[in-house]
Amino acid sequence: MSKGLTSRTEDYSQWYNELVSKADLAEHSSVKGCMVIKPYGYAIWEKMQAVLDQKFKDTGHSNAYFPLFIPKSFFSKEASHVDGFATECAVVTHYRLKNDGNGNIIVDETAKLEEELIVRPTSETIIWNTYKGWIQSYRDLPILVNQWANVVRWEMRTRLFLRTTEFLWQEGHTAHATQAEAIAETEQMLNVYADFAENWMAVPVLRGKKTANERFAGALDTYCIEALMQDGKALQAGTSHFLGQNFAKAFDVKFTNREGKIEHVWASSWGVSTRLIGALIMAHSDDFGLVLPPKMAPIQVVIVPIYKGEEELEKISATAQQIMSDLKAKGISVKYDNRDTQRPGFKFAEYEMKGVPLRIAIGGRDLENNTVELARRDTRSKETVSNQGLAHLIENLLTEIQQNIFDKALLNRAEKSTRVDTYEDFKKVLDSKAGFVYAHWDGTPETETKIKEETKATIRCIPLDNPLENGFCIYTGKPSTQRVVFARAY
Amino acid sequence: MSKGLTSRTEDYSQWYNELVSKADLAEHSSVKGCMVIKPYGYAIWEKMQAVLDQKFKDTGHSNAYFPLFIPKSFFSKEASHVDGFATECAVVTHYRLKNDGNGNIIVDETAKLEEELIVRPTSETIIWNTYKGWIQSYRDLPILVNQWANVVRWEMRTRLFLRTTEFLWQEGHTAHATQAEAIAETEQMLNVYADFAENWMAVPVLRGKKTANERFAGALDTYCIEALMQDGKALQAGTSHFLGQNFAKAFDVKFTNREGKIEHVWASSWGVSTRLIGALIMAHSDDFGLVLPPKMAPIQVVIVPIYKGEEELEKISATAQQIMSDLKAKGISVKYDNRDTQRPGFKFAEYEMKGVPLRIAIGGRDLENNTVELARRDTRSKETVSNQGLAHLIENLLTEIQQNIFDKALLNRAEKSTRVDTYEDFKKVLDSKAGFVYAHWDGTPETETKIKEETKATIRCIPLDNPLENGFCIYTGKPSTQRVVFARAY
Repeated sequence: MSKGLTSRTEDYSQWYNELVSKADLAEHSSVKGCMVIKPYGYAIWEKMQAVLDQKFKDTGHSNAYFPLFIPKSFFSKEASHVDGFATECAVVTHYRLKNDGNGNIIVDETAKLEEELIVRPTSETIIWNTYKGWIQSYRDLPILVNQWANVVRWEMRTRLFLRTTEFLWQEGHTAHATQAEAIAETEQMLNVYADFAENWMAVPVLRGKKTANERFAGALDTYCIEALMQDGKALQAGTSHFLGQNFAKAFDVKFTNREGKIEHVWASSWGVSTRLIGALIMAHSDDFGLVLPPKMAPIQVVIVPIYKGEEELEKISATAQQIMSDLKAKGISVKYDNRDTQRPGFKFAEYEMKGVPLRIAIGGRDLENNTVELARRDTRSKETVSNQGLAHLIENLLTEIQQNIFDKALLNRAEKSTRVDTYEDFKKVLDSKAGFVYAHWDGTPETETKIKEETKATIRCIPLDNPLENGFCIYTGKPSTQRVVFARAY
Repeated sequence: MSKGLTSRTEDYSQWYNELVSKADLAEHSSVKGCMVIKPYGYAIWEKMQAVLDQKFKDTGHSNAYFPLFIPKSFFSKEASHVDGFATECAVVTHYRLKNDGNGNIIVDETAKLEEELIVRPTSETIIWNTYKGWIQSYRDLPILVNQWANVVRWEMRTRLFLRTTEFLWQEGHTAHATQAEAIAETEQMLNVYADFAENWMAVPVLRGKKTANERFAGALDTYCIEALMQDGKALQAGTSHFLGQNFAKAFDVKFTNREGKIEHVWASSWGVSTRLIGALIMAHSDDFGLVLPPKMAPIQVVIVPIYKGEEELEKISATAQQIMSDLKAKGISVKYDNRDTQRPGFKFAEYEMKGVPLRIAIGGRDLENNTVELARRDTRSKETVSNQGLAHLIENLLTEIQQNIFDKALLNRAEKSTRVDTYEDFKKVLDSKAGFVYAHWDGTPETETKIKEETKATIRCIPLDNPLENGFCIYTGKPSTQRVVFARAY
């Protein structure tokens, strides 16, 4: 392992970049704005996918696949949608290269597309154009479809996982006979995301609605989960949109209802992306590297032998094999690292950097005493424990670690949540401890925009369970009936 | 269900298109050459992915993700590679749209890329450009990485699953310290594919090497599995390439070996795609629709109630629930279709079209007799059986069906495999029963090309276990030491 990380207090952003690199999660590619997700980072994404995919299926959804390319004309059909995405689209204009005769490969100008194709930034338009052929009557509804895919949004300033030109995500697109059903779906999927964030990623989230300014381009309502990072900046971790009949109208998707009348179809869409890996890193990790909640860890337990000579290694390996088989029987993922090319200290630092929740070290004395050394990544505490009942102990410890990581994140959020009543205090809090700032707002986009321009803070959401409370907008002094949640955000 | 299918003998191609549509597998999208994979078709792909992914992991591979876009200059670095793919590349030239002021969305000409980006048709170039940063010493080798991704090859004449502009696939890209190791990997993955095709898809395959003409652009050797469809046309179902040091040289990827000397790295790549779904359909299905081997069936057993009135339905449902829980306990996937909007006959036709291996019908008399009606999709035979031990019976039947479907495909291949010794016979066989034609060939690309031009047959492979046998090329009469396998192919 190379030298340690820049500390979070020294330079949070630098700390993040170094961690992503040193924990072998991802790297910038030679293609501007696009990342390479390395095997260890991708293994975390696979864990996320497996859990989410099961949740989608448990709630009645099926996967499907729609084209990567969207004809430019489709894009223009929903006015606010195209406004939202037009400035960040990768455009395919040709379909052939050729040799120019001097050994250079150039674009073949005779192979120009009649209509340009957009690389999907999101798939509402191509999917609703398809649904038109699938829906005639209420019997064809609901359609509950999800897609795992790559999408492209041209970004000028990128950050690994958090903001990249290409990223991986899932996008659910559902079609319903009634408004109520579409809204219920939108809310259901928000709850699926919140459950995943809190109970799997160990990241507490606020559930809320976006203001008009922050809404998805084409939605009537955008629901979101908002997480708070250790530096006090917010991160939108997932969104679920109630699309009304906007896309059904744009693509002329109608159905005959139970009463025999023809209506436009109601829609939702919802997505989370590889951005979640960024959230996972920034929510929990420390100056020694990644800290992973056990449920998201590709390797939950690593065993490192500390030995002198082949004979001792063999004995340790026998013990390690027994422990591994006990752990695997409990569904715990475990790796035995008996590489002879690296010393134990190097391995310790490597697994610390990679956030493996538990490390077992076995040395000669341990063999004699029937013990192992057990080290927790979250607390960095070590203890020597008996081999007797070790798998059971570890199973409980992993549960405890999962809970502890969540509790720490919850505490961080509590400490960084502040109620303010004046614009003065608002700015002070943003510049000192940052975090979620609960403040009154007059409900107008104009005020929100001005506050954003002056402070870089946006309204992250209006929490779903928001208590009503009379007050005055911190910016205009106009009356308000509830506080909303402001923050600077990733 | 709408009317039946065109029969295979009447018009095989039409039969295939209708089946793909009526079994709800896929459809053409509004984007030329791109398909929509519908939920039922995608569920088959998910089954394929799950099995293959596990096999890749069991053989030591990890998944990762590399950019969708490849800079044009990367593409040009390996000469035969660019020759192979240049004429079918989607090219991104701009990264922004804008409103022209008259309400039209147009490409923003000020947002032109300095260097065009190619939408990946395959990822050797971008991946080897990345591996350069990962490899310094033999300790960094081997790299055993796979990627599940979408790729684009611009096709003028498309066919759902078999040949589309965009398709889904996996591409393995491995890096090794020695030639022997890279070749061993190439062969190992061919065997993984063959095992999957035969023991999961129930499609017998020939394992062989491609001739120089049919080799992957940039490979030293292309290994393949070749399957035979019911109409006697061959289908390449998977390829595994030994790339030598070609890409390492093109991207300057070197390592220090155990002896301290600097060498170029050795490579393999291997892939299968959604094309496999086309192979699955054409290998087994009949004039009544899809026939799925149980191991690839999203639904293995469907239960249809036949009832008069709510009361009877309730009793049948209780029986059905019991059967379902018994089957699920054995890991068998089962669906209970109690829709009241469709009659049993409609449902029977639907599941027949969709290739569900076993259908259980339960009526009033069955309740009295403690029986069910069990129908096999592969043989279309029905029998009334006791509820007693039903799950066990079904478990065995599914194994039997899997084997029966494989045996049928094997018989088809045997019947359509012919040895010929003259060009006259060669053409006669191709035009009468088609299939695999084993014939002597003089080993030159020129002869292969002429035979292809005259007959549309290509050399599918030189089988790996090919017996040596002296003979004379059917085309030139020159001496030959072994027969190769010719066929017309998809």
